[in-house]
Amino acid sequence: MSNRVSYYLVFSFCFLLAFGACTTTSPLAYQASANLQSGFDKTLAAAVTDIEAKIASSTDIPVPRDAGGGYTHEKHKDNAKTIYNAGQLFKITSDTKYANFVRDLLLEYAEVYPDWGLHPAQKEQSPGRMFWQNLNESWWLVHIAQAYGLIVDTLSESDRETIETRLLRNMADFLSSGSPETFDKIHNHGTWATAAVGLTGYAIGDQGYVEQALLGLDKSGEAGFLKQLDLLFSPDGYYNEGPYYQRYALMPFVIFAQSVERNNPERNIFSHRDEVLKKAIYTTIQQSYGGLFFPINDAIKDKGIATTELLHGVAIAYELTGDTGLLSIAKAQNKFVLTPESKVLADDLAAGKATPFNYQSMRLRDGAEGNSGALDILRASSDPNASVVVMKNTSQGLGHGHFDKLGFIFYDNGQEIIADYGAARFLNIEAKYGGHYLPENNSFAKQTIAHNALVVDGVSHFNANTSTGNKHHPTPGVFVVDENLKLATARIETAYEGVTLERTMAIVSDSAFEMPVVIDVMKGKSKSQHDYDLPFYYQGQVVEMNFDLNTNTTSRSPLGNKNGYQYLWDVASAEPVNDFSQLTWLKNNRFYTLSSSLPTSTNLVFTEVGANDDNFNLRREPAVIYRTAGSNDVSYVSVIEPHGEYNPIVEFTLNSHSKIASVKHYEQNSVSYVLIETKDNKKVGLGLSSSQDASATHSIDVNGTTMSWQGPYKLFPSQ
Amino acid sequence: MSNRVSYYLVFSFCFLLAFGACTTTSPLAYQASANLQSGFDKTLAAAVTDIEAKIASSTDIPVPRDAGGGYTHEKHKDNAKTIYNAGQLFKITSDTKYANFVRDLLLEYAEVYPDWGLHPAQKEQSPGRMFWQNLNESWWLVHIAQAYGLIVDTLSESDRETIETRLLRNMADFLSSGSPETFDKIHNHGTWATAAVGLTGYAIGDQGYVEQALLGLDKSGEAGFLKQLDLLFSPDGYYNEGPYYQRYALMPFVIFAQSVERNNPERNIFSHRDEVLKKAIYTTIQQSYGGLFFPINDAIKDKGIATTELLHGVAIAYELTGDTGLLSIAKAQNKFVLTPESKVLADDLAAGKATPFNYQSMRLRDGAEGNSGALDILRASSDPNASVVVMKNTSQGLGHGHFDKLGFIFYDNGQEIIADYGAARFLNIEAKYGGHYLPENNSFAKQTIAHNALVVDGVSHFNANTSTGNKHHPTPGVFVVDENLKLATARIETAYEGVTLERTMAIVSDSAFEMPVVIDVMKGKSKSQHDYDLPFYYQGQVVEMNFDLNTNTTSRSPLGNKNGYQYLWDVASAEPVNDFSQLTWLKNNRFYTLSSSLPTSTNLVFTEVGANDDNFNLRREPAVIYRTAGSNDVSYVSVIEPHGEYNPIVEFTLNSHSKIASVKHYEQNSVSYVLIETKDNKKVGLGLSSSQDASATHSIDVNGTTMSWQGPYKLFPSQ
Repeated sequence: MSNRVSYYLVFSFCFLLAFGACTTTSPLAYQASANLQSGFDKTLAAAVTDIEAKIASSTDIPVPRDAGGGYTHEKHKDNAKTIYNAGQLFKITSDTKYANFVRDLLLEYAEVYPDWGLHPAQKEQSPGRMFWQNLNESWWLVHIAQAYGLIVDTLSESDRETIETRLLRNMADFLSSGSPETFDKIHNHGTWATAAVGLTGYAIGDQGYVEQALLGLDKSGEAGFLKQLDLLFSPDGYYNEGPYYQRYALMPFVIFAQSVERNNPERNIFSHRDEVLKKAIYTTIQQSYGGLFFPINDAIKDKGIATTELLHGVAIAYELTGDTGLLSIAKAQNKFVLTPESKVLADDLAAGKATPFNYQSMRLRDGAEGNSGALDILRASSDPNASVVVMKNTSQGLGHGHFDKLGFIFYDNGQEIIADYGAARFLNIEAKYGGHYLPENNSFAKQTIAHNALVVDGVSHFNANTSTGNKHHPTPGVFVVDENLKLATARIETAYEGVTLERTMAIVSDSAFEMPVVIDVMKGKSKSQHDYDLPFYYQGQVVEMNFDLNTNTTSRSPLGNKNGYQYLWDVASAEPVNDFSQLTWLKNNRFYTLSSSLPTSTNLVFTEVGANDDNFNLRREPAVIYRTAGSNDVSYVSVIEPHGEYNPIVEFTLNSHSKIASVKHYEQNSVSYVLIETKDNKKVGLGLSSSQDASATHSIDVNGTTMSWQGPYKLFPSQ
Repeated sequence: MSNRVSYYLVFSFCFLLAFGACTTTSPLAYQASANLQSGFDKTLAAAVTDIEAKIASSTDIPVPRDAGGGYTHEKHKDNAKTIYNAGQLFKITSDTKYANFVRDLLLEYAEVYPDWGLHPAQKEQSPGRMFWQNLNESWWLVHIAQAYGLIVDTLSESDRETIETRLLRNMADFLSSGSPETFDKIHNHGTWATAAVGLTGYAIGDQGYVEQALLGLDKSGEAGFLKQLDLLFSPDGYYNEGPYYQRYALMPFVIFAQSVERNNPERNIFSHRDEVLKKAIYTTIQQSYGGLFFPINDAIKDKGIATTELLHGVAIAYELTGDTGLLSIAKAQNKFVLTPESKVLADDLAAGKATPFNYQSMRLRDGAEGNSGALDILRASSDPNASVVVMKNTSQGLGHGHFDKLGFIFYDNGQEIIADYGAARFLNIEAKYGGHYLPENNSFAKQTIAHNALVVDGVSHFNANTSTGNKHHPTPGVFVVDENLKLATARIETAYEGVTLERTMAIVSDSAFEMPVVIDVMKGKSKSQHDYDLPFYYQGQVVEMNFDLNTNTTSRSPLGNKNGYQYLWDVASAEPVNDFSQLTWLKNNRFYTLSSSLPTSTNLVFTEVGANDDNFNLRREPAVIYRTAGSNDVSYVSVIEPHGEYNPIVEFTLNSHSKIASVKHYEQNSVSYVLIETKDNKKVGLGLSSSQDASATHSIDVNGTTMSWQGPYKLFPSQ
């Protein structure tokens, strides 16, 4: 009687595609279109075609030789894919030809693996044997362990013995006791290793591996999967490098946790740390708009919720929660993986059970203790196309962090409207700097001026020093989610010596406006004089402004020579009239007006990315910069107003002009009042105090009228 | 017994939306999403909501006063919409409240219309009475006549008499005998007038109006609808201003023709002139890619097949032909109008009867006689996402024509890859030059350098003189549609004095390439020396090139000061090695390489639109220009090669490098040979002769081998 515990298929065909050549099969992943009922079936059909062809041909198992990208590297990855898929197909079809194919390949590997020493092209740290990096070896075993678990009951005792001893245990030992510096590390690579070893433990029925995976090599709990779970996510499920890397980090967590849940349900792994893993899955979804992740820090902008990690994440979360809102996410993903829970997802979606996903305004605290800043997400409503402000009040985010404290992104109508550049990188495009982060990632994309964040004296936050940045974080202030007001505030004293940055952003719904508007109050405070630059990277075509443009029509030069300024062309400048600026642009058939009350003597600088771009590495994106020279304190108070419609199909245009007549900012001591007046004489006000005391009362003179309120903020609606 | 003939509802709610304020109803037009079964029902529901609200309020019928856009203008348009929709709803629901509402409004109009003289804000030519322009009055009557036809049977004899005499006949007389200069004109405005009068004739049962509409005021046939049908389209159904205006011109043609077909079937109107009207509908669809019209000449680029004109066109064509390929177009349109034939279309689509639309390579001859050049469309296959080359070998296209003889657009993978700028205009956006064509439309968008067309001596074709352009047209050469070769050729001697331009473009399918490639042979020939510029407006991000870039990193200046050059920044230059240039870019996750054999001493100039753009009127689009100074004859031989895949979701990249090792061009007398060699040593050749004689034999020495063939062209495949 085997003591093997139940084992479920948790890895997918699609995931494997990510790592190998997949000319013939990859397009199928995209064909799961409108006919959702067959989404799962199509994935299955593609896998059958692929594996049948491979059974009919021979498989090469080369002696390890090449570094990443080379033949032996790619071949072993491809073989893992093949073995894994064949295991899956056996599970689904019960056709033993698939199990036998897995067996034969594993026996071949068992024959050669024990004789392989460290990889000849090993990386200095954490080398593998089959691969140059330990990380790839973990990845390989994660697949093989799962496939083995699916076919083990079909094996003879001697084949079992051979495969388990010479291959699985051999490799699991190498990855655990043989590589303690990775296995016991609180790091994403450690999670891959513990997941690989733990999955092997379940597959071969050796609980010792499982214990080590969960609790560390010495089983003390000081390392291992549970500790990683405690430290790599914040209490709210935020991963401190941001959503782009959160998605990647999530994979081994959810795969192994699911196995733990099924094999050791008494561990209540999904309840661990107040359900942090479920929170991590949900927050990954919440950190997206239009299907794409918020591109804060190093992020490839076209990465979104349809990535394989989240196909698994959503299916597993649905199994855990039965939340039919997740079916809406599955619908948007429009792809399925070959797991049982993904099939349930596909079936329930086809059965019409989907309800809208509950997109929320939320403050995601950063740091293991939740006290290292926060990512503040303001949503006008749960409608996925409603306005969203993402305010980056987080910590630095380690080496992938950008220097944009209190920066923001604004989305509306399904699109990014005031944008973050993301990373300067063409992932996997070898001609573009080997597919690595481009030099411009450090010299431009990470710099403050590349973001919608306040720059002081032309220098980036923390002087663009990552280790300095890692030591500090903003201090979040109030976070408000009322029906007509979503508001977040934060400040930081450490981005610049002697300068405090403070920003409050709010989404306000009021009948004075056609749609909800954003209020942005960005302050810089110092005892000495500084030069301030506040950029807004608007997306779209400028249609109107309330000032005269002074355009550099026949020559252009860069805005500076360092700190990212060298990549920005000086396109045009303007002097706003009475310190009030209005700029209207058109994006995706909707108009947006940025109306700003500016510090005295502030100029506008229009710019465009692309100077000093020898090799056409950067995207041509425009921005307007509010520039104030030699001031102690500055306050930039802006309203971002979506309005109207441009309909080129039936040829009409509605409300192409802003409704806003003026934006005024009143400030007395630590109390502020933003007054917006519309062209039809409606007034909307927002009172702010830097005190967070809910019982404190404040009053301020606004043009002769005293406005009073209690607490840190108060919306004064038009009616 | 009434002699009124049967009358059908042929105008739509959606069409009316084009002309009025439609805040509440227009979004509904877009909500006909995946659930196609209800597309028609949703349009209906929106109309009911709108009309019910209008019945409940009062309607203003103001004395005409304002020009286009003013209150009285918009109000009368809005009233026409209301009357028309109410008529439709009566037809569909048989609820007499709708008919009574139409009656009441028409009686009110009948009360006041006879006393209105010419409009006070009349345009000098062709004034109206209700509107400043005759054209608007025709538009109004087109709607009212249809609505009247739908409710006439519910009227008392005296109400009939009042409405017909005081309103319908009064207006029809004004538009026909009262405005002969428009009514008898062979022009789109004339078609609106004849359609309005003809539809009135059918609605009130007066065949005299119908005869005048069809045959002209004197019923001689020298003017009128039939003559317009003879002269405004080419024999292939091409409209000589291009598809953007073809769509617009189509509307009164199809609406009135449908009424003629139903009321006077013996006229066989749809068989007229070898079914030219059906051809015009079909060619409008054929002149689209990714749902958008080919943006040749003045064209707003986001205008496509979902416009109301084509909702009608497709529904009517489906009724005529039963071609289930049209259901695929209806699916792509994803909107329906309120006509009976549109309901049939929606129902048949929902019933799963759609088959792929037969997109074809086709030569659309230009001119009433079909002998004024041609629009050549080459499609790699009938797949709507396959490669397409649109070669502009047409005549000038009157005032909306651009100066881009033998220019082209290249589409692939659902997108424009080598692009045409289209018109410089923000339609209906008042802040942008009143929504009119911008000054940059003439000074940039129409100029040759703004296109993928050969510029000689920095001057535009015909020196950018429209009337000169209208006198000339290219001479089309062979047009080939074979399985592996689609080819078109044309030449023109009149674009420049003393210079002949000749271009051959082909789509070649060969196993040497991953996907079909485009071969482009652009020649300039002259007895004297000239400077040549050949731009390619590539769309996407440059990833690789085979030459060193000399980028103007810290300053930029315009490429010239006239003929459109003043709007182009001099971004970078390069000298190709051995006259062979390769440039690879990435667009929509596919790679494209432009590999060119260039004339000796040709330089590359990289440019970007945006210089001298004081008011941010132009889109920032890049191009590479092949520049050859002081040559008699030049031949630019290029291969456009789609390849590989960039998949950011599952993180892989395939075939990011071109497969092409070299492109060589051999030329002896009037015979050319293009030789493409791939990196894996395959050779593909294309032999060309300027003689169109199918029996003539040609031979040419290609690197020591004599290549021979018969006829004007021959593809030499790799195997």
